Amino acid sequence: MTQIAILGFGNIGSGVAEMLMRNAEYIQEAAGDDIFVKYVLDKRDLTGSGYEDRAVKSMQEILCDPSVSIVCEMMGGTQPAFDYSLAALKAGKSVVTSNKAVVAKHGAELLQAAKENGVHYLYEASVGGGIPILHAFDDSLKGCRIDRIDGILNGTTNYILTRMHDCGSSFEDALDEAKRLGYAEADPTADVSGADTCRKICILSALAWGKLVDSDTVYCEGITEMKEEHNAFAAACGGFLKLVATVKRSEGAPMLSVSPCVVMEENPLSSVKGVFNAVKVAAGDMGDLMFYGMGAGKFPTAGAVISDILAILRRKDDTDRYRFFENNDCAPTAYDKTKYDYCVKVTADRKALDAMPLTYTLLKEENGELYVLIEDIAKSDLYAALGGVTVSLCMRAIV
Amino acid sequence: MTQIAILGFGNIGSGVAEMLMRNAEYIQEAAGDDIFVKYVLDKRDLTGSGYEDRAVKSMQEILCDPSVSIVCEMMGGTQPAFDYSLAALKAGKSVVTSNKAVVAKHGAELLQAAKENGVHYLYEASVGGGIPILHAFDDSLKGCRIDRIDGILNGTTNYILTRMHDCGSSFEDALDEAKRLGYAEADPTADVSGADTCRKICILSALAWGKLVDSDTVYCEGITEMKEEHNAFAAACGGFLKLVATVKRSEGAPMLSVSPCVVMEENPLSSVKGVFNAVKVAAGDMGDLMFYGMGAGKFPTAGAVISDILAILRRKDDTDRYRFFENNDCAPTAYDKTKYDYCVKVTADRKALDAMPLTYTLLKEENGELYVLIEDIAKSDLYAALGGVTVSLCMRAIV
Repeated sequence: MTQIAILGFGNIGSGVAEMLMRNAEYIQEAAGDDIFVKYVLDKRDLTGSGYEDRAVKSMQEILCDPSVSIVCEMMGGTQPAFDYSLAALKAGKSVVTSNKAVVAKHGAELLQAAKENGVHYLYEASVGGGIPILHAFDDSLKGCRIDRIDGILNGTTNYILTRMHDCGSSFEDALDEAKRLGYAEADPTADVSGADTCRKICILSALAWGKLVDSDTVYCEGITEMKEEHNAFAAACGGFLKLVATVKRSEGAPMLSVSPCVVMEENPLSSVKGVFNAVKVAAGDMGDLMFYGMGAGKFPTAGAVISDILAILRRKDDTDRYRFFENNDCAPTAYDKTKYDYCVKVTADRKALDAMPLTYTLLKEENGELYVLIEDIAKSDLYAALGGVTVSLCMRAIV
Repeated sequence: MTQIAILGFGNIGSGVAEMLMRNAEYIQEAAGDDIFVKYVLDKRDLTGSGYEDRAVKSMQEILCDPSVSIVCEMMGGTQPAFDYSLAALKAGKSVVTSNKAVVAKHGAELLQAAKENGVHYLYEASVGGGIPILHAFDDSLKGCRIDRIDGILNGTTNYILTRMHDCGSSFEDALDEAKRLGYAEADPTADVSGADTCRKICILSALAWGKLVDSDTVYCEGITEMKEEHNAFAAACGGFLKLVATVKRSEGAPMLSVSPCVVMEENPLSSVKGVFNAVKVAAGDMGDLMFYGMGAGKFPTAGAVISDILAILRRKDDTDRYRFFENNDCAPTAYDKTKYDYCVKVTADRKALDAMPLTYTLLKEENGELYVLIEDIAKSDLYAALGGVTVSLCMRAIV
């Protein structure tokens, strides 16, 4: 029997306990073993939870019990989650986490500790909820070159943008609705500012290329300024407004960004609606892949935690390289110096635009304004090239 | 160094050899070892291929060389692919295949032989080309209940239906175009009849629930009868015409089918265009997931073969349960007795329809005809309930 401890018995922590019971048949078959929750650590009173007999108030108790081989950290926030995770790894226990804040900040250190102690530190649930994307990166896609990743990684913001599109809601109304439905937290700052998305793209990037970039150094623009005009602009360009995180393969400084984008209709990311998440991967010879699913929620996230527990049981000996990355040592390329694609609305006629030193695709012409797509250009070069004309809107495009 | 043999040096076989060279850096890192092609078995003359020095004409030579630990079977057809695979497994060599015909017909026997000999039989490349879907089923999704799978599993048919939709082409013209572009083979029967899709859904189903259904016993309707009216019907219902394979979880007789369907716009499968494939999984507590990518092609398929080689190297000890299934012993439920959703066009007014013993959703009303969605009903019950009214079109719906 595999004995585990759960740190943090909130939505996800209790979801893991519930799913372990409910799906015991499948889990037992997959693990070749029973999984038993021996301890639950939470400062709240667990009376009535069904787990009061296993409640502990001190991490020390868990660390000192050699029968616990896996610790599931679902506390949120960096402390004490980081200290507890490090202590567990040093005590020879594998750690599974859903905590993107810890992974984005301390992942490299924790992975190194896991390696040194011959145990696992796994974090599937920290990105994309139930979508098995990290697993795919470090397994099926490990033998091919990854060129680029684009992700819709936050269900709250995608829900808000979907409502703005479908119902013409304002940002504020859509946010209120998301709060009422439980899709947004009381303080939605981390979601709508893009910070949550930013942490997740840093984790994906780390897994794809082995280097973790400090999320505080990444260009990150949220959706708080999005208005009807941005929606209308995206539609006029033949696309949909989405908050997209992008990272491109780079030999030198990393190239990452998070910003509201016009996702062109031909791109499968354009069909990702409501609270769903998706990650599109340009995987060299393998072509484009997309992984889609519930990016958050109690059970999808708990399911990802359980898939990591199973991964530990099935690959005990593969602790030194599995899902490993290190800290990156150089800052990302400045956003306006990185080449992306852009949708631009300019007040100009075609003759004026044809005289500019750039190549464009005309998307629409209306009321003396041109909607154009300009591909593979740094924003600073784009503005320089557009010189004399008036740019009334410019957004990153995902073609 | 890991030494492998390639059986069949056509498009995919040569793709594997090429990718092993081109992606050596990534593969070496993932495998922790070099992978070397020691033998190539093909009845064609390999002069000029760069592999003439490793060409062999007899399987015996490969079987007798203990330094070869993995055999990649990319011959196509069931024989001699099956005999060679079985012999390799019995000789203690793991086998990786892209050959869906062999897996759909003899998979259970080959997996049993692999188990008995402590080696692997892996078949990621047999379904969905480069999409790591089988891997996900037997790893990340192993701990949760799978309720249903819907797949667009054949790039040729999806390309044809996409062209019929986008350009108003007839089936015949779209097929000719697909042949010209190399998306359809000279004899496209296996694709357009649905047989290829049918084999693939049987393999997916086997992996999800452990039992392989004989594909010859599955209800399978291809796209050869599809005309403009079906396209127009799908559009009037608010969806897109796609060839969809569906399998539902069942305690008793399996429930599988392959048929042209109206995929409603809200379903992410509706956005799968051209030669792309996708598999949507209703994964119980995990919610809906979708995996999307290149379902065929030299390098996506070769990449899937390589991902299986890496899986073998990374999970040497997990040979008795990994991607295992057995033959199923009972025939599937008859198609018209299995509950699905349907889009129906009837000549009736709403009053007449309201008097029928069924629940429906009105999609459109036009020229005295109603387009309705009727959910979760067996086709035989649907027709019985619709009694007196004229049904001018009825297609399975994917909502």
